[in-house]
Amino acid sequence: MRKIKKPKVIIIGGGFGGLSVAKKLSNKNCDVLLIDKTNHHLFQPLLYQVATAGLSPAYIAFPLRSIFRKTNNVRVILGEVKRIDKNEKKVYLNGENYSYDYLVVAVGAGHNYFGNENWEKSAPGLKTLEDALTIREKILLAFEKAERTEDEVKRQKYLNFLVVGGGPTGVEMAGAIAEIAKKTLMQDFKRINPSKANVFLVEAMDRILPTFHPKLSQSALRDLKKLGVKVLLSTRVKEIRDEKVITDNFTIDTATVIWAAGNKAKPLINQLNTETDKMGRAIVSQFLQLKEDKNIFVIGDCACFIDEKGRTLPGVSPVAISQGRYVAKFILNEIKGRVTKPYRYFDKGNLATIGRSKAVADFGWIRFSGFFAWLLWVFVHIYFLIGFKNRFIVLLEWIFAYFTYQKSARLIVSQKLG
Amino acid sequence: MRKIKKPKVIIIGGGFGGLSVAKKLSNKNCDVLLIDKTNHHLFQPLLYQVATAGLSPAYIAFPLRSIFRKTNNVRVILGEVKRIDKNEKKVYLNGENYSYDYLVVAVGAGHNYFGNENWEKSAPGLKTLEDALTIREKILLAFEKAERTEDEVKRQKYLNFLVVGGGPTGVEMAGAIAEIAKKTLMQDFKRINPSKANVFLVEAMDRILPTFHPKLSQSALRDLKKLGVKVLLSTRVKEIRDEKVITDNFTIDTATVIWAAGNKAKPLINQLNTETDKMGRAIVSQFLQLKEDKNIFVIGDCACFIDEKGRTLPGVSPVAISQGRYVAKFILNEIKGRVTKPYRYFDKGNLATIGRSKAVADFGWIRFSGFFAWLLWVFVHIYFLIGFKNRFIVLLEWIFAYFTYQKSARLIVSQKLG
Repeated sequence: MRKIKKPKVIIIGGGFGGLSVAKKLSNKNCDVLLIDKTNHHLFQPLLYQVATAGLSPAYIAFPLRSIFRKTNNVRVILGEVKRIDKNEKKVYLNGENYSYDYLVVAVGAGHNYFGNENWEKSAPGLKTLEDALTIREKILLAFEKAERTEDEVKRQKYLNFLVVGGGPTGVEMAGAIAEIAKKTLMQDFKRINPSKANVFLVEAMDRILPTFHPKLSQSALRDLKKLGVKVLLSTRVKEIRDEKVITDNFTIDTATVIWAAGNKAKPLINQLNTETDKMGRAIVSQFLQLKEDKNIFVIGDCACFIDEKGRTLPGVSPVAISQGRYVAKFILNEIKGRVTKPYRYFDKGNLATIGRSKAVADFGWIRFSGFFAWLLWVFVHIYFLIGFKNRFIVLLEWIFAYFTYQKSARLIVSQKLG
Repeated sequence: MRKIKKPKVIIIGGGFGGLSVAKKLSNKNCDVLLIDKTNHHLFQPLLYQVATAGLSPAYIAFPLRSIFRKTNNVRVILGEVKRIDKNEKKVYLNGENYSYDYLVVAVGAGHNYFGNENWEKSAPGLKTLEDALTIREKILLAFEKAERTEDEVKRQKYLNFLVVGGGPTGVEMAGAIAEIAKKTLMQDFKRINPSKANVFLVEAMDRILPTFHPKLSQSALRDLKKLGVKVLLSTRVKEIRDEKVITDNFTIDTATVIWAAGNKAKPLINQLNTETDKMGRAIVSQFLQLKEDKNIFVIGDCACFIDEKGRTLPGVSPVAISQGRYVAKFILNEIKGRVTKPYRYFDKGNLATIGRSKAVADFGWIRFSGFFAWLLWVFVHIYFLIGFKNRFIVLLEWIFAYFTYQKSARLIVSQKLG
């Protein structure tokens, strides 16, 4: 058992994991440095709503500095860690470096194109605000281009939308795009009929939402079909190029492809020179540490924790938050010379929404879908948002959208036009 | 007197001028095509609040299509007019062209660097949402960089902000940046003291707000000084480069320069091959037409209307709106074979805000400043915003900001960091 007096803790990443470590270490007997590439904590579960013009970015992104304005031991820095030196116990940014006693790596995951990184340009993924704004612009521009063109074939290409991946993000995106096309834009276009839009959801497995119970997958599938989404199961994407998606079954001409098919830990994990799984995640001990370096913790989407039954945990925010709290407790215990029990995760259940009044909830002991699952989804997401005003305005936007079918943030900002 | 049955009207630009033409021609006996480079009408008077993180873009930008969803004779197109052919009576976009009986050019103005276009990169202006987001990111990043650096000289450079131009936009920007520095960010930074930030406002004339009465200029100057803004009158910028602004009096090291010093009509005006003034604006007849082509109207910031006393009109939204309404009336009269009287502008007065509880109001017959001018400013801006929900949320944001000094949209979105 070690005992470090007033240790220096460096946390890389201000997502759910990193933030929960920093919060629990606030005003405790340690110096915390939180480093993030952006200036905000992003509430990723609602990012798809930014991408589909439902919410303004500011309401799901909270300045990290503001969160820690009243703490005296947490310093926030905007920057990108380029190198980690385990021997020196230092992290290197462009220009400066910082020493640590404990390092918490919580950098999350990026998109996984499974070796086809060249698809990224045609099929952006959804991880950051920048991604969401890129996708929003792509979707809105497709409708505008369809309205402008005289060519029927081109028009249909602009009105075909394709989402790759049937996990929660893919399902939410497909449902939201279908709603925009069938409802929001219905009256706005004079020449095109936005309801001629096709939304395809391509999934390699034989069901969508594979982390949920099969019954809920069934129910989500029915809901998506009701919204007019064409769900293509057991279908693998073989090529994306020239505004075409080629699967093992057929080819679809489409100007808008969104990638929600898989995650891969951020490349910074390679700096740790440690064992990783096939998603690039660092394999951590029962204490969420690197097996060979007890000063380094890895948590959240970039960590692979294997429990006593050999199972790994999904890359969702409750896991990241719970791991962040555990690490903070572990550090605080060590400061006091106490031992911490190995980490255990208690499953808090799973929620996914398909669209207006449609969601699925899976708590293991109880499973349900439909309006009440959706109300629960609304409640949980408002509750976990940071900031009273953000909660209030997001709720207001949802109530407004519920009654009018209008989307709040239908903005094409960049002026790169054809 | 001509009489054209069901004429084709093309409006270029969905700003205050173009929008008011299209609105007044809605559901009338003509075919209207509204062409804009973006998909939204921008409420420019509040753009500085987006640039200073006070409001999210979506609440001051309203989709043009939605405005005309219930009209059957107005078609909206997202696109850029590249060429105007007065003989053929056609406008050319990339790819397609459209014929008109009447053309209304309402493309507005861009920044005027008076021959120093290379300054634009260092000193962006504020005209579009894209501009505003660029400036917002620049301002927020400057504080972040100041926090990160160890170098005192560099730190001060990041904490120096300079606004060129003492018109309403320049005054509003300078006031808002000072408020961010002195109030909003005060507690958020641990190492830098945001109150060490200097905000400079450089104006070539001997007073700010030159279109207002001198007494109000005085009062605005006092208010800015109270906010800590360093106003440099009778000072001319000679060079902007390498994070340095060189004036005829001194040199200031600053990483953040904002250009609000002058406007120039958009280059599309050159396509009209008509007489222009030194700001590049088309000189129009008493009917707001080109003198040599009665099928073409030019209105708003890209038009130079000279009244019977030889005066020109300022580039403000009430002028554009009034001119737009006039043109629509003119066209509707011609459809009915009626003659329209020459255009006259009735001055509706001038408002500018300096910051929280501080504004000036100039109606000619009455002038006042202070809290009541500010309340009037708030009321007028909420009233003229489009959309009930936008008004409600903007008002909510202002009330919230009034009591907490917090800014709603403190987002650094792009990940291009040092």
